[in-house]
Amino acid sequence: MADQDAQSPAGVEPPALPVLRWDETPGGPVLVLLDQTRLPAQETELVCTDVPALVGAIRTLAVRGAPLLGIAGGYGVALAAARGEDVAEAAGLLERARPTAVNLGYGARRVAAAHTAAVGRGVGGAAAAAEALAEARALHREDAQASRRMAEHGEALLEELLPSGGHQLLTHCNTGALVSGGEGTAFAVALRVHRQGRLRRLWVDETRPLLQGARLTAFEAARNGLAYSLLTDNAAGSLFAAGEVDAVLIGADRIAADGSVANKVGSYPLAVLAKYHHVPFIVVAPTTTVDLGTPDGTSIIVEQRPGNEVTEVTSPHGVAAGGGGATVVAPLGAPAYNPAFDVTPAELITAIVTEEGVVSPVTGVGLAELCARSSQVTIS
Amino acid sequence: MADQDAQSPAGVEPPALPVLRWDETPGGPVLVLLDQTRLPAQETELVCTDVPALVGAIRTLAVRGAPLLGIAGGYGVALAAARGEDVAEAAGLLERARPTAVNLGYGARRVAAAHTAAVGRGVGGAAAAAEALAEARALHREDAQASRRMAEHGEALLEELLPSGGHQLLTHCNTGALVSGGEGTAFAVALRVHRQGRLRRLWVDETRPLLQGARLTAFEAARNGLAYSLLTDNAAGSLFAAGEVDAVLIGADRIAADGSVANKVGSYPLAVLAKYHHVPFIVVAPTTTVDLGTPDGTSIIVEQRPGNEVTEVTSPHGVAAGGGGATVVAPLGAPAYNPAFDVTPAELITAIVTEEGVVSPVTGVGLAELCARSSQVTIS
Repeated sequence: MADQDAQSPAGVEPPALPVLRWDETPGGPVLVLLDQTRLPAQETELVCTDVPALVGAIRTLAVRGAPLLGIAGGYGVALAAARGEDVAEAAGLLERARPTAVNLGYGARRVAAAHTAAVGRGVGGAAAAAEALAEARALHREDAQASRRMAEHGEALLEELLPSGGHQLLTHCNTGALVSGGEGTAFAVALRVHRQGRLRRLWVDETRPLLQGARLTAFEAARNGLAYSLLTDNAAGSLFAAGEVDAVLIGADRIAADGSVANKVGSYPLAVLAKYHHVPFIVVAPTTTVDLGTPDGTSIIVEQRPGNEVTEVTSPHGVAAGGGGATVVAPLGAPAYNPAFDVTPAELITAIVTEEGVVSPVTGVGLAELCARSSQVTIS
Repeated sequence: MADQDAQSPAGVEPPALPVLRWDETPGGPVLVLLDQTRLPAQETELVCTDVPALVGAIRTLAVRGAPLLGIAGGYGVALAAARGEDVAEAAGLLERARPTAVNLGYGARRVAAAHTAAVGRGVGGAAAAAEALAEARALHREDAQASRRMAEHGEALLEELLPSGGHQLLTHCNTGALVSGGEGTAFAVALRVHRQGRLRRLWVDETRPLLQGARLTAFEAARNGLAYSLLTDNAAGSLFAAGEVDAVLIGADRIAADGSVANKVGSYPLAVLAKYHHVPFIVVAPTTTVDLGTPDGTSIIVEQRPGNEVTEVTSPHGVAAGGGGATVVAPLGAPAYNPAFDVTPAELITAIVTEEGVVSPVTGVGLAELCARSSQVTIS
């Protein structure tokens, strides 16, 4: 069903992607990001010397994806502390940079709390900043560990749900190494299935408007030698109808206490298709994405983004290619509706896979029990 | 929910679009098409002097949309006749240019049959060619009439289904004046609702990969002063979940004898969403789109198109804008799955609206009865 095929042997692992790193330069500490708006055309580094620069990178989606936003938020606060700036103010700025992904606020608040605790113990400026940085590094490491454990739990769940093997999995948006301290959430599960030689195909939704599937997931799939095919989000329906999807794997930006999942726009239609076709719909996310303070799906604030993301297609080649970076695809002044996320209710979700285990069926009680087991630091 | 708004008063009708016309030039007859690949950036005419040129225009979608393809097929055969070429061969070439839209073959065969009949009556070359042209013109006129009647039947159906008025309608792909001898199919219904002051909003799916919604339906909506908003195909799910869609209106490329409808890829997921949300899903198409010779949905051949339509976004500004006309959005060599259409089974369709009336519920018997009433010329 694909017009081309690309698959390399399982077991060949590419070098880790330089997604985000803390660097000590002669001019002071900086946070170095892989600019995801330029992928797959260019691997360009973006150097953030202060919090406003990082907030800008978050808003333009140069750095994105729920778990990675948490890590970026944490390092951002550590950066403010190292620069002797107001840490609480920095945490607030970072948390408000994007409203839906709960991890961003979690990371920022957690590192700010570590800094406040150090100051409270009478630890001086540079030492308190070092403690903040240590907390950000801990968050980064924990996320990598969580990624491994989610992949294990997710793969075991697939074995149970699809005992005949030879999986054809469908995914949406980007949930791999580019969003994580490790190999990601939903994509990490597909990657593990691939490494075990059991992945027949990964169907990759292109994920309009910003094409994270086409630009980023296809890039990660190709890098890791997965058998994959790219499709317009529209074409997923044909695959379900033809019985070519065995399970859907997606990530999450915020999971409410009742198990409702906010994720990239287009997730909810996939959940409805999966339900109609009796295909498992699986959400993979660390427990840091669960927000027990948000009671239900209707309480989740969905970010509305500018209409020009719909009326234009931005080239990852950017200005460098001489095309001005954007292709206009609609009449001038066309009004657009552009929610960044949608919300899938628990009854459409087969399972939520976290580093602590799997919740299935998805209930508020099950989710609360699992979060209580979480080894993550709890902060208010 | 929209970031901009554009609405002009109902009743102001723009001049007709120069979609397709027969022209007698000093060099001989030609078929002049509006190049739809350049819209909305440029209104460029494409002059086809022979059948191979027209076949090329059909394949690149410079001319497209089921009813208009029927008209183009008819005029194409008339062009071959006028040039003294083999009419049966021309009809075959045209019919095979694209496999899914049944109207294309219908138009080509109908005009070829008129030519054959003339020749059979002993009518000479130029006079037989004139009869072929007259038949193509008749088909063109009939389509315009069918468009008016579909709009009337469709609008009456909406009144019945949605008595409270203030409709928010969602449409997919392009089904307006650009696909028709008149004002189109599904879009013509929305236009009539608008002219009666009862359209609250037309939600326009952008319709990847070729963005006929963003490029063409938004263009037609703006030209006619409709209140509309463009959205990525992905975002339709959020609108259904929010109760912001009162009915879905789409066209069709082929309707099988059991009421299965092949239409632009992305129609089937909308049908599943509409079913899940108890929203009417209405197909609007002339009886020439019904193919009683295709027994069911599985018998419909779905055109698979090149993967680069997915991995690249073509600029309607084309080469003229200096950008080479295409924005690459995926890694080089990314494999893609790119069906042009999908098939929606009858049980997901609330009603099929034709110029002869409405079939609801959609059954093979109902469809056959309606086709038997059709005033269209029947050809084998």
